[in-house]
Amino acid sequence: MRDAGRTRRSVLDAAARTVAANGTAVSLDVIARAAGVSKSGLLHHFPSRDGLFLALAADLAERFADAVQAAVDPRDNAPGRLVRAYVRATFAELENGASAPEQVMLAGALSAVPGVDQVLRAHTERWNEAFEADGLHPDRCLLIVRAADGATVAAIYEGAANPDELRHTRELLLRLSHGDGSV
Amino acid sequence: MRDAGRTRRSVLDAAARTVAANGTAVSLDVIARAAGVSKSGLLHHFPSRDGLFLALAADLAERFADAVQAAVDPRDNAPGRLVRAYVRATFAELENGASAPEQVMLAGALSAVPGVDQVLRAHTERWNEAFEADGLHPDRCLLIVRAADGATVAAIYEGAANPDELRHTRELLLRLSHGDGSV
Repeated sequence: MRDAGRTRRSVLDAAARTVAANGTAVSLDVIARAAGVSKSGLLHHFPSRDGLFLALAADLAERFADAVQAAVDPRDNAPGRLVRAYVRATFAELENGASAPEQVMLAGALSAVPGVDQVLRAHTERWNEAFEADGLHPDRCLLIVRAADGATVAAIYEGAANPDELRHTRELLLRLSHGDGSV
Repeated sequence: MRDAGRTRRSVLDAAARTVAANGTAVSLDVIARAAGVSKSGLLHHFPSRDGLFLALAADLAERFADAVQAAVDPRDNAPGRLVRAYVRATFAELENGASAPEQVMLAGALSAVPGVDQVLRAHTERWNEAFEADGLHPDRCLLIVRAADGATVAAIYEGAANPDELRHTRELLLRLSHGDGSV
């Protein structure tokens, strides 16, 4: 049971790396090799390529949702606590040197796989409901979330993330999340 | 002279498509074929792979800068006119169905090419100077620009761009660009 979970995890991690680097045209053989598992071991968990890529898209979305939940401050009961956790989780990844190009290329490559749009839209609906319950004005929430998402691509478009600017942007967004009404 | 410009343009466009789909590991033969030019014709304009990718990164940055300049309203003399043009140009691309995944994957792939970071950083410095001269409070400018950038990836992360939300976000950002002081 534990081994099965480990194999599944290895395959998903290897798939993330290889798809980010080479797109979804990569073969299952290459992914199995990168994961250090046999092809039949891979096929046991993921009988098809598209099935593997769908599972990978769901895994990415779930792991980000988990990171946001983990970033919720339990003493914070003010409106916007989830938005603040979203900002903290997003910038923690960027500041810890997570490879923004790799993440974005992976998401872009997966977005062309049939069925991935439905997986992502289901997650988006859950986020929208959670943000609605979070109590900030919808425009304020939209602005903060979009700006946090924008910081993840700025590192790509600008040649490198600027640590001072990252910190400044995070503080600005957290401050905005304490405001009332629209923006 | 005109033919030379056309060949150069064909090669850059073909490189953009193939790198977005397959990463920078793509061969110059494949790019030449996709451009409908001979390999020697390609090599005449771009003697090396990395040289081609550097030129492509510069071309993307310049074409976006041109789109923003074209979106400046000549009757608009208020602070933030460049920021408003940036917002309009960004959302025009999204609303015209420009492939956000393709653009982002292309930028992500190019970002790993040696020298591309310098090209992009030089552009970023020019943008920063232009935004400073544009007269909005720096935090207001940063927030609007980052949120516009975020809208370009939201389409990827959320499975599809939502036209109503795009329009709403654009209006929100344009409204913010008319505000005074910080946010």
